Amino acid sequence: MTTWVRDSGLWPRGQEKIDWARRFMPVTTALGDELHRARTVAGLRIGLSLVLEPKTANLALSLARAGADVSVVCRAVNTRDDIAAALVRAGICVFARSDADSATERRQALEFVNRRHHIIVDDGARMIRLAHAEHSDVLDSTIGASEETTSGLRPLREMEREGRLRLPVIAANDARSKTLFDNEYGTGQSTVCTIADLLGVALTGKLVAVAGYGYVGRGVARSASALGATVTVAEIDPVKALEAVHAGYRVAPLAEAAADADLLISATGFAHTVDIEHLLALPDGAAVAVAGGVDQEIAIAAVLDAGAARRTVADRVEQFLLPNGRTILVLDNGGCINCTAGEGNPIEIMDLSFGVQLLAVEHLATRGEELAVGVHPLPDTADARVARAKLDSAGIRIDIGGQAR
Amino acid sequence: MTTWVRDSGLWPRGQEKIDWARRFMPVTTALGDELHRARTVAGLRIGLSLVLEPKTANLALSLARAGADVSVVCRAVNTRDDIAAALVRAGICVFARSDADSATERRQALEFVNRRHHIIVDDGARMIRLAHAEHSDVLDSTIGASEETTSGLRPLREMEREGRLRLPVIAANDARSKTLFDNEYGTGQSTVCTIADLLGVALTGKLVAVAGYGYVGRGVARSASALGATVTVAEIDPVKALEAVHAGYRVAPLAEAAADADLLISATGFAHTVDIEHLLALPDGAAVAVAGGVDQEIAIAAVLDAGAARRTVADRVEQFLLPNGRTILVLDNGGCINCTAGEGNPIEIMDLSFGVQLLAVEHLATRGEELAVGVHPLPDTADARVARAKLDSAGIRIDIGGQAR
Amino acid sequence: MTTWVRDSGLWPRGQEKIDWARRFMPVTTALGDELHRARTVAGLRIGLSLVLEPKTANLALSLARAGADVSVVCRAVNTRDDIAAALVRAGICVFARSDADSATERRQALEFVNRRHHIIVDDGARMIRLAHAEHSDVLDSTIGASEETTSGLRPLREMEREGRLRLPVIAANDARSKTLFDNEYGTGQSTVCTIADLLGVALTGKLVAVAGYGYVGRGVARSASALGATVTVAEIDPVKALEAVHAGYRVAPLAEAAADADLLISATGFAHTVDIEHLLALPDGAAVAVAGGVDQEIAIAAVLDAGAARRTVADRVEQFLLPNGRTILVLDNGGCINCTAGEGNPIEIMDLSFGVQLLAVEHLATRGEELAVGVHPLPDTADARVARAKLDSAGIRIDIGGQAR
Amino acid sequence: MTTWVRDSGLWPRGQEKIDWARRFMPVTTALGDELHRARTVAGLRIGLSLVLEPKTANLALSLARAGADVSVVCRAVNTRDDIAAALVRAGICVFARSDADSATERRQALEFVNRRHHIIVDDGARMIRLAHAEHSDVLDSTIGASEETTSGLRPLREMEREGRLRLPVIAANDARSKTLFDNEYGTGQSTVCTIADLLGVALTGKLVAVAGYGYVGRGVARSASALGATVTVAEIDPVKALEAVHAGYRVAPLAEAAADADLLISATGFAHTVDIEHLLALPDGAAVAVAGGVDQEIAIAAVLDAGAARRTVADRVEQFLLPNGRTILVLDNGGCINCTAGEGNPIEIMDLSFGVQLLAVEHLATRGEELAVGVHPLPDTADARVARAKLDSAGIRIDIGGQAR
Repeated sequence: MTTWVRDSGLWPRGQEKIDWARRFMPVTTALGDELHRARTVAGLRIGLSLVLEPKTANLALSLARAGADVSVVCRAVNTRDDIAAALVRAGICVFARSDADSATERRQALEFVNRRHHIIVDDGARMIRLAHAEHSDVLDSTIGASEETTSGLRPLREMEREGRLRLPVIAANDARSKTLFDNEYGTGQSTVCTIADLLGVALTGKLVAVAGYGYVGRGVARSASALGATVTVAEIDPVKALEAVHAGYRVAPLAEAAADADLLISATGFAHTVDIEHLLALPDGAAVAVAGGVDQEIAIAAVLDAGAARRTVADRVEQFLLPNGRTILVLDNGGCINCTAGEGNPIEIMDLSFGVQLLAVEHLATRGEELAVGVHPLPDTADARVARAKLDSAGIRIDIGGQAR
Repeated sequence: MTTWVRDSGLWPRGQEKIDWARRFMPVTTALGDELHRARTVAGLRIGLSLVLEPKTANLALSLARAGADVSVVCRAVNTRDDIAAALVRAGICVFARSDADSATERRQALEFVNRRHHIIVDDGARMIRLAHAEHSDVLDSTIGASEETTSGLRPLREMEREGRLRLPVIAANDARSKTLFDNEYGTGQSTVCTIADLLGVALTGKLVAVAGYGYVGRGVARSASALGATVTVAEIDPVKALEAVHAGYRVAPLAEAAADADLLISATGFAHTVDIEHLLALPDGAAVAVAGGVDQEIAIAAVLDAGAARRTVADRVEQFLLPNGRTILVLDNGGCINCTAGEGNPIEIMDLSFGVQLLAVEHLATRGEELAVGVHPLPDTADARVARAKLDSAGIRIDIGGQAR
Repeated sequence: MTTWVRDSGLWPRGQEKIDWARRFMPVTTALGDELHRARTVAGLRIGLSLVLEPKTANLALSLARAGADVSVVCRAVNTRDDIAAALVRAGICVFARSDADSATERRQALEFVNRRHHIIVDDGARMIRLAHAEHSDVLDSTIGASEETTSGLRPLREMEREGRLRLPVIAANDARSKTLFDNEYGTGQSTVCTIADLLGVALTGKLVAVAGYGYVGRGVARSASALGATVTVAEIDPVKALEAVHAGYRVAPLAEAAADADLLISATGFAHTVDIEHLLALPDGAAVAVAGGVDQEIAIAAVLDAGAARRTVADRVEQFLLPNGRTILVLDNGGCINCTAGEGNPIEIMDLSFGVQLLAVEHLATRGEELAVGVHPLPDTADARVARAKLDSAGIRIDIGGQAR
Repeated sequence: MTTWVRDSGLWPRGQEKIDWARRFMPVTTALGDELHRARTVAGLRIGLSLVLEPKTANLALSLARAGADVSVVCRAVNTRDDIAAALVRAGICVFARSDADSATERRQALEFVNRRHHIIVDDGARMIRLAHAEHSDVLDSTIGASEETTSGLRPLREMEREGRLRLPVIAANDARSKTLFDNEYGTGQSTVCTIADLLGVALTGKLVAVAGYGYVGRGVARSASALGATVTVAEIDPVKALEAVHAGYRVAPLAEAAADADLLISATGFAHTVDIEHLLALPDGAAVAVAGGVDQEIAIAAVLDAGAARRTVADRVEQFLLPNGRTILVLDNGGCINCTAGEGNPIEIMDLSFGVQLLAVEHLATRGEELAVGVHPLPDTADARVARAKLDSAGIRIDIGGQAR
């Protein structure tokens, strides 16, 4: 089995990183302990498809400690070999090595699927779709799955509408304990601090345009404003636009907001949000970045086709000479700027997300047989338990709702 | 018909107040104009049951100008006779006089119901319930109704569950354009400013406990914090409690939050939220008030039964000598403190609410026949039109979502 | 002596108001007690020239309790007869009645001066200037004076420069414990809340122009912004303008800021700050008000001369029809809008100011003989004692600076 | 001369970095141009003692372009060889190489002093003190100096008091355009963002204790609070403590604030601010860091003597096992955490500081002969010009104060 990782001798360094991360993961730890005590997942085969780094490793270890037979799969680009080695040493079955080519990745994925997990925790619905497409026999023994991301839920809901989905799936991504904190707080801070650091500039006094006022957009707007920037929001939904006005921001069409921006941050998750027209509207010297994000959210390919020239001027900072003669700065090649901050999202935020995953697994383990095929929300009571575990870990007590209320 | 108002000669003063209010009601004006141009409600009998003051008068006049045959009913305590007179002069049928006794009020209500409206805009579901209980024949000619408040929707949803509801009802109260701005922004500011004014104190440096972190509670917390207070939130829902933590507030059980509070504000809408134990926990000299609110949200009757003594020390400020020997201040007899600020909620906030009501009426007028019996949300498109009208009135433009997105 | 007050029988109601105010004046109470215990002012004749209301009454009573022989003088317009009566009953010599004509006011002032006080606490330097001009013999027995306001310090400093000042004067107004809190916090909140209340509007989403970014201006900007307004600051000092930029506000010339303002607030203390050109620049329906302020800070006389017409449309709200055909709203006739809120500035803020006055009196009583003629700052140690008394009253402890630091 | 730099061939990379920095230095550029046009410094020998990186290089180049004969000296640890090479190529005399040993550093310093500058721009008063101590003959030809830092002004003021200072010195550090923005805004953001990045944590929901509420402390408190932390301030000056209360922070003695802190940030500039007792008070897992700072501001040496053990757990993060059995994290060995963020302070903030330096040089060049020996403030008019240049560069216009005001 260890042939699926690169170097099992790397485990000590990996273990140290995992231990460090666990300090900041009281929710995952506490809820994992609950699963352990209740023997909820004991003996179940659980497969995790996740970015393989110290935080996710703790999720896998929590399930293993609770008695589950755990497997982990990850693509080469997202794999850290020392973490993989530490998981192998803990008895987890790992299919992940940073030097895998695409043929190897595919074999790893098929091996993973073939383990006929009772429960799958997926990211981007990659394993669920693979199983449906090429290995649908394994679905018979699968109780259900849980999906971590918005972009993974989209195809699953489409499969449900078209009658092709064959499993109950918990929309872990949509739990309030995840969305509110992950998107609004975690992403906002890390986006703004990372940009300030890359450019070596202060936010105070800057004009910042934010495209999109969903959870991520409002987190970015709040953090930038909090650090002294004047924020203009561009948003196509009038109700959200009105919310932005009431939160004290200027609101304008994106091309207008761009025209005097020192910094333009896209937070929509749609390609070509920052299109050629917006890039050309920016003043000389402005910078552009993406929070969260999808490919070509900044229309980099299009503007290069239109004659722009690029050159690197600092770490993850490129200068684009535009057809109109102005130069602008594009950060991190238009990729998710907050994902590149340190180890990604702040640990405590991921801790909440993984608390949600543990209770999604618990829900499938205990009630999964009753669930119809389809995408289901995490029950409110589970959401509340995640939040309560977080409050407990911070020593914060609240009233218990009695009958009087 | 004018016998139903007190003095039709009062109209000039009433008209002036109505005109003054309309300055700040661009949404009601603009959407009323749309109804007029489209002749959507021309000839329909529309009955409004609302607090009768200058802002609601503009809602009635907008419908009348759009060609509807409008009636208005209001209880004595909520009626301003000059406004009633001005509506009568504009050709509206009014059943409202400030000196009506309860027998008169009942006759007015029955007359109102008896007009067999096509559409009812209700407040607290008073007219809808009366029609169901005593005059159900009029329901045959009624297309549907729209309800303004949370407390009115509660009994209507119960009637729906029990199969007793016989109309489609639009839950105008739940529209995002109403809830977000009315509850969170309007109430927050007016609560905090009114309390500061009544006590003659500054918020800065004060310790403020807020019970409840729903829309109203977060508006109160935000305004108090914004003016320099240190806020502690008490909340029984762990997810909301965690939100409060992430917004930067302290979170504690209410008795603990009360123990060092200069000011305790209840924002839950449940009776006995501030119960005897919390009153006794307050330090000497603390003040207590209610935002929004229901009867006995502060347990005034109970604490008086328990031996407390009260006396008035300033306008709407009473000092309670508690059984434990401490004195505290109770504001406005525990009633809705923000409702007593000037003319109630800020005009522009009510303008959004009435924009919602106009489009609820429009929806009933155009699509009501297709609606099943039951409580329905306002369609998202209508919500968006209200927000857009508000943005337009402020000269704020936004992008139109094209196919690229 | 009591002939100098209007009706000595009014004392009970006055006493009740004074007692109510004292609840919120722990600093004045504590420092007054210190003076009492140290017998610092025992036997000294101390004259107070102040607006005569419950808060100032507590200052006078604190000095009387500490053993001083206290007199109070006040002009008719600023006198509350019930408060005056309560002071007389406490043995204080009062020269203040609300029905005094100007001849009576002058006789009262001369009687007051003639009492040959050891120490004078003045407001606007009215008594100090009178003594210098008409009764300079009394200065021989005067140790010194303390001045409460910016506008009183200006002529005193001019007298010093010209060699005409004959007393040491403590600039109580400039103490950090007064300026920081009185101007920045007290005035900001009361200005913004009073305006919102008079207009019946919410601040959220409003465009607010603030003229001047001194202590008062930044307090107004902060409060308006905190309640959701978008603030533009106009300021002629580039460093202050840059501070405003860094605090997140837009900065523009006043005429430009006025052009899209829903609300324009002047906070400069200079006449004609809001001049005809700025009034004409305002959009239709905008409102104008003054925080703090001097006469004609809004150029009302000039714009009326230029052909504007005024009429009252609500309590303290006038509509001006301007020569350019637009109508705007002027609040409280251009007077100090925050002074009209309830009883004026928040009590706790005045409590700090009066703590400063008590220590200014103490400084004069103990060290006054050593002080040269001229305007002197309050010693830092006294400033720190006021702040410490405030912290103590709130139960807030801090470290004591030891030699290690 | 070029033997004083390490490799003159490195200039192209250095020049590129200098050009990149200049994009964000409009104030230095504009004021440098003014000096050039006015020929104010043409022909003067000006010596700069500064950290040698791209921003300071632009200050040197601005003076050179304005016609001055410029020299630069820098210690090895603060020297970037590519920047040094680019300055040499521009004709500047440079005494700085990253591989200099202390003997070489001393020879460089003496060579620098020996150039008999008309004006010295110093950092930490290193060159001024050296000239006074070992080369006082050069002072005869020196018009004066300007000092960049608080820590450099302290010994200069002591020399002045003791009659040993022989030059007029401009306290560039104290200019409002420097202090307000450099300390309060620049340091606040970079401290908080750097800590969040090193720990990989979010600020939201964290309890942060800040020691000291001067400019730096309030910047740190504001940034942490803005990003969602709950801040407790410890301060020994009661007035500043009261300011912190009014800004909405909790205030407590440091040991008490430390007791529940997730993060403790010292911002006092005094050694042993965070002493053994405070380190022992911290909860298990807390982190400690210093903003700005002096050696042993965290008592690291003392706690190690007392038996603590340290080990590195991440980049610039050490875990200390304390004698009481708890472990805490110390960031960057207790050094200035914000100085390690990217290239140090944000560029635009340094741009303001260097604008101040240029006008200090101008003041010395034009009026230096009239200045008495001693430490002088930068004239207010110069301060205003720096701020105005910044506003101009941002396209922000303000009113010009006319006689009407």
